[in-house]
Amino acid sequence: MERSARFERGAARLAEMGGDIANITGPLADVAPDLATLVGEFAFGDLYTRPGLDLPQRQLVTIAALVTLGDTERQLRFHTNAALDVGLKPSEIVETVIHLLAFAGNPRVFNAMLTVKGVFAERGLLPVE
Amino acid sequence: MERSARFERGAARLAEMGGDIANITGPLADVAPDLATLVGEFAFGDLYTRPGLDLPQRQLVTIAALVTLGDTERQLRFHTNAALDVGLKPSEIVETVIHLLAFAGNPRVFNAMLTVKGVFAERGLLPVE
Amino acid sequence: MERSARFERGAARLAEMGGDIANITGPLADVAPDLATLVGEFAFGDLYTRPGLDLPQRQLVTIAALVTLGDTERQLRFHTNAALDVGLKPSEIVETVIHLLAFAGNPRVFNAMLTVKGVFAERGLLPVE
Amino acid sequence: MERSARFERGAARLAEMGGDIANITGPLADVAPDLATLVGEFAFGDLYTRPGLDLPQRQLVTIAALVTLGDTERQLRFHTNAALDVGLKPSEIVETVIHLLAFAGNPRVFNAMLTVKGVFAERGLLPVE
Amino acid sequence: MERSARFERGAARLAEMGGDIANITGPLADVAPDLATLVGEFAFGDLYTRPGLDLPQRQLVTIAALVTLGDTERQLRFHTNAALDVGLKPSEIVETVIHLLAFAGNPRVFNAMLTVKGVFAERGLLPVE
Amino acid sequence: MERSARFERGAARLAEMGGDIANITGPLADVAPDLATLVGEFAFGDLYTRPGLDLPQRQLVTIAALVTLGDTERQLRFHTNAALDVGLKPSEIVETVIHLLAFAGNPRVFNAMLTVKGVFAERGLLPVE
Repeated sequence: MERSARFERGAARLAEMGGDIANITGPLADVAPDLATLVGEFAFGDLYTRPGLDLPQRQLVTIAALVTLGDTERQLRFHTNAALDVGLKPSEIVETVIHLLAFAGNPRVFNAMLTVKGVFAERGLLPVE
Repeated sequence: MERSARFERGAARLAEMGGDIANITGPLADVAPDLATLVGEFAFGDLYTRPGLDLPQRQLVTIAALVTLGDTERQLRFHTNAALDVGLKPSEIVETVIHLLAFAGNPRVFNAMLTVKGVFAERGLLPVE
Repeated sequence: MERSARFERGAARLAEMGGDIANITGPLADVAPDLATLVGEFAFGDLYTRPGLDLPQRQLVTIAALVTLGDTERQLRFHTNAALDVGLKPSEIVETVIHLLAFAGNPRVFNAMLTVKGVFAERGLLPVE
Repeated sequence: MERSARFERGAARLAEMGGDIANITGPLADVAPDLATLVGEFAFGDLYTRPGLDLPQRQLVTIAALVTLGDTERQLRFHTNAALDVGLKPSEIVETVIHLLAFAGNPRVFNAMLTVKGVFAERGLLPVE
Repeated sequence: MERSARFERGAARLAEMGGDIANITGPLADVAPDLATLVGEFAFGDLYTRPGLDLPQRQLVTIAALVTLGDTERQLRFHTNAALDVGLKPSEIVETVIHLLAFAGNPRVFNAMLTVKGVFAERGLLPVE
Repeated sequence: MERSARFERGAARLAEMGGDIANITGPLADVAPDLATLVGEFAFGDLYTRPGLDLPQRQLVTIAALVTLGDTERQLRFHTNAALDVGLKPSEIVETVIHLLAFAGNPRVFNAMLTVKGVFAERGLLPVE
């Protein structure tokens, strides 16, 4: 598959976030390789490389959206790791989730906090100060 | 339990879709047998047997709703199988899920594609051409 | 603003659907012209021009997603018009909305049907046969 | 940690519902102890102790919200147990979930019923009469 | 149109709730008369006439679902009126909405309370004691 | 009504955000004054005054949640004003909404941008640079 400049830009951005485009292209290779291309090009190549917000700000926004949306454990796990990799402190991620008590309700917040905790545990970041 | 004509019609429709009403009545038998009756009568007996859309069209609509709703892995698994059984091609199901990038967001689409892939794998339909 | 090939392809696709890209670029011009560009390129230029589903199938999928998502009256109005313009019959649109009783619940279906009715009324398509 | 009067009132209320505040404070201790405090104080200390609805009524409302929201299996499990502990009959819980066919759609109802069934099974309450 | 026994039962139940089936059949007559039939038969004829919960309990459940779902102002207005007509006190409806702060978040609760207030105002029930 | 220290702290925080607690207490006075108290105390007094995130960060998180949740036009209008009042630039708000194309889908983003535009227009902030 020939990769577009947008896709290459997206893959590079993803790498800055601690991710690996192969984790998107791999699982989709035999079912929907075009989905990997579209996500790499659009979400990471177009949106995530825009100016206007820096990566820590984008990760606050992304985490808030994922917590609110629900049924996003896989994505929240990835984006919590990415949030840490672009410099957000564990306490900022925790605070973001707590803040959402007012907007998304307790169940979304509680589930998300346990997912976030799992990521922190894997990275040896517990207890959060 | 006496089964109504609507229920029998629903069970027959479900069978055309590759399903088995016993997979609905069985797990609900000791907790809520009436739920199985209501779903068999209404969803499959009333709605799924209506004219106006053919079964492949209905499965496009159903899959789109399940992907958008979220937290529907069990249902998406069933209705992906049903979609194949009523004649949709794997590529049409894949394309339906990809199309929803514009309306339901990446997390819903990505999760759904992995569920769909699981069904295709069980049926030996990978790779999708 | 220089328009990309993807954007031009999207604008052309939108025109086939009875839409006008100016209705997207216009309202966004002084607040977020890039949003119009991104939507024109990605949703209409990339996704809506893909093979795998024809336009009537795509509009079934889109309408199902919009009904299920909720708070989409503006979009449902546009995509009902587009559905008619690409050849879906009013009765197929009505049937799609009714089918969603099983998946999205009565309030989503009832609200959507009144929106659809409004579009049909504007186009002189009532009563639906 | 010094516990506020609101928190103590919440912990007591939770105990009346068959719960144990330690099951909230424990898992959050090393990631977000403040979240446990806020939930104990606000949800259980402020809201759940208000007059105006009795506990069985509150559990009907809570279960309806959890089923409709989706992605709430953990919470639905807890609040089904609590509903039984405050005196709701299994048949009332089952009927609440069935009623939601009209508002939340079949997938939410079906998933919820299986969760409810799991709780009933653990408590030896099957079959439901 | 010939009306089924289920539909007649639903229409009668709706009348007990202070509603009028003509308000459902009327607006749908020229676009989707079958939708009115299906809702009358299933939601009101099958579900709302079941034993297991009384009408005040059902209205607590319904209101909780509508508030949580969102984009349901029209339905919440109807079901608030119905709740009053089947004997719930304004203070019980208010308390139900407040309780949902813990599960559905502030925006859903705030919007719902303003809708509920509108109904109370029309019926001369303000201020709520 | 006697106001708690938490409520007074919340009212003060709200004032820093350009809001006025009277706009919450006023409309709720004759229907649910306790709701105003609870929101003032908890959302603004407890959550919004926590350390860990500054107010501009909190407004990014809040806006992301409101856009994703949907049916939040009233809240988005308030919190867009608040975001400006605590120092976010119009371009940062716009960029937050655009970023959500990847997570919440086009309809949520498009509706939100028009709401945001309305606020900017009222404050003479168009065109956004």
